[in-house]
Amino acid sequence: MEIIDNPIDARRWMAAPSRSQRVALVPTMGALHDGHLSLVRRAASIADRVVVSIFVNPTQFAPHEDLARYPRPFEADVAMLRDSGVAMVYHPGVESMYPNGFSTYVEPPSVATVLEGTIRPGHFRGVCTVVLKLFVAVPAQIAVFGQKDFQQSAVIGAMVRDLDLAIEMDVAATVRDADGLAMSSRNRYLSADERIAALSISRSLFATRASWQDGQRDAEVLGSQMIDIMRRGGIDNIDYAVVVDAQTLVPCPAADRPCVALIAARLGTTRLIDNVLLPV
Amino acid sequence: MEIIDNPIDARRWMAAPSRSQRVALVPTMGALHDGHLSLVRRAASIADRVVVSIFVNPTQFAPHEDLARYPRPFEADVAMLRDSGVAMVYHPGVESMYPNGFSTYVEPPSVATVLEGTIRPGHFRGVCTVVLKLFVAVPAQIAVFGQKDFQQSAVIGAMVRDLDLAIEMDVAATVRDADGLAMSSRNRYLSADERIAALSISRSLFATRASWQDGQRDAEVLGSQMIDIMRRGGIDNIDYAVVVDAQTLVPCPAADRPCVALIAARLGTTRLIDNVLLPV
Repeated sequence: MEIIDNPIDARRWMAAPSRSQRVALVPTMGALHDGHLSLVRRAASIADRVVVSIFVNPTQFAPHEDLARYPRPFEADVAMLRDSGVAMVYHPGVESMYPNGFSTYVEPPSVATVLEGTIRPGHFRGVCTVVLKLFVAVPAQIAVFGQKDFQQSAVIGAMVRDLDLAIEMDVAATVRDADGLAMSSRNRYLSADERIAALSISRSLFATRASWQDGQRDAEVLGSQMIDIMRRGGIDNIDYAVVVDAQTLVPCPAADRPCVALIAARLGTTRLIDNVLLPV
Repeated sequence: MEIIDNPIDARRWMAAPSRSQRVALVPTMGALHDGHLSLVRRAASIADRVVVSIFVNPTQFAPHEDLARYPRPFEADVAMLRDSGVAMVYHPGVESMYPNGFSTYVEPPSVATVLEGTIRPGHFRGVCTVVLKLFVAVPAQIAVFGQKDFQQSAVIGAMVRDLDLAIEMDVAATVRDADGLAMSSRNRYLSADERIAALSISRSLFATRASWQDGQRDAEVLGSQMIDIMRRGGIDNIDYAVVVDAQTLVPCPAADRPCVALIAARLGTTRLIDNVLLPV
């Protein structure tokens, strides 16, 4: 497993004739957990070689967010990937990604303007910019993302289409702990009490899916149900709990298309997101 | 010479094993003149194959600008290129470049904020977006631009560096008519009187270069000299006439670095730009 720390060497590695097979890229911010490893397994099942990028991207954090405390257990991450058949880890330094004078960004597609885009202004600008740079440095055939960051996948998918990028998007199902909590690098911030309260996020999503399956199509009713369950579970600070069109992320206008239930909520200083698909 | 009209076929053409040689891309908006042909000759001299793109890019025109009347003599352009050893003409349709729902743009680097960036807000956003899409569809090793659009080359060069794009920038000298007028597709809009007045643009640039060579380093003095010559030549409507740092395009602070004299002026409804380098 090779470890490469700058875009020029990454492209060189990708261009080697022995690498002409199908490559899948799994972009991550490190602090890897079983959710990431499931993306790696998924990547290995659909490509000949897997590249994992590990980069805590400063441009997608707002000044008041958790960039400084975001975990960076690089040695442990590498150890996990060594056993997973990964061919290359791309781990660029901040200065090689954003050298002095860096000032070109991607202005994200319209699907970035709602939900996370409202609550975290500039977040998707940073995400799109870094992901474009990753795709340029590692011109893989496939990129594998986790469904937990649902809007992120929708935003990157729209960017890929708009900019004609020659990469196929693959979105893999969210991996959960046995009690239902969606795996996240940020779960390690939770106190014992916060972790118990956090379970009401997935509980409310599953309840909404059950209501949907029972025929409930009123997005207001479904949203209120989620908020009630989270409030009763001890979560007061809910950024959103909505049922929206799975393509456009605008409020689901009718029952005739795939929708998604999306939640963002705060437990103390930790912000978690989760979602479930509501297939028709 | 092949003519391809969409990004997917363009990438397919580029990926053919027989095209593994070095490819140079010459991006144009068509209405080709000898200046463009000199770019094609330059491209052929530094690469194995030349691709010319012809696309009048709507996103770089403001609503009040000359998009509708911009000349599109496609058959004549193709005829000129057939005799020039061009391997492929990339001529995408507007709907294949900007399909319904298109909403991802490049936010240009800081060098785009001055001069043209001030007078034509949004212009470089459109330029960067279309050039990135051209580079993605036609992943050439080299891109050849004309020096006449000096700031454009600086903007695209900064974008290429910031986004790690694997393409080398080549800027070829401006081609002029015998009387000094820089060749431009927009020259055809000029009346006979306007064309005579327009000659004072290059005349003032050459005078500034002569003053520079004589040791004059005061950017204010040099700017006033250019404005005087143009006013006497019959040009009242001058957007700018400045001497700036050739890298950053900020006012040239000292005589110890390469500078450039840049002019933008209007003759009736026609806006022309030109420049000369002021080497140290």
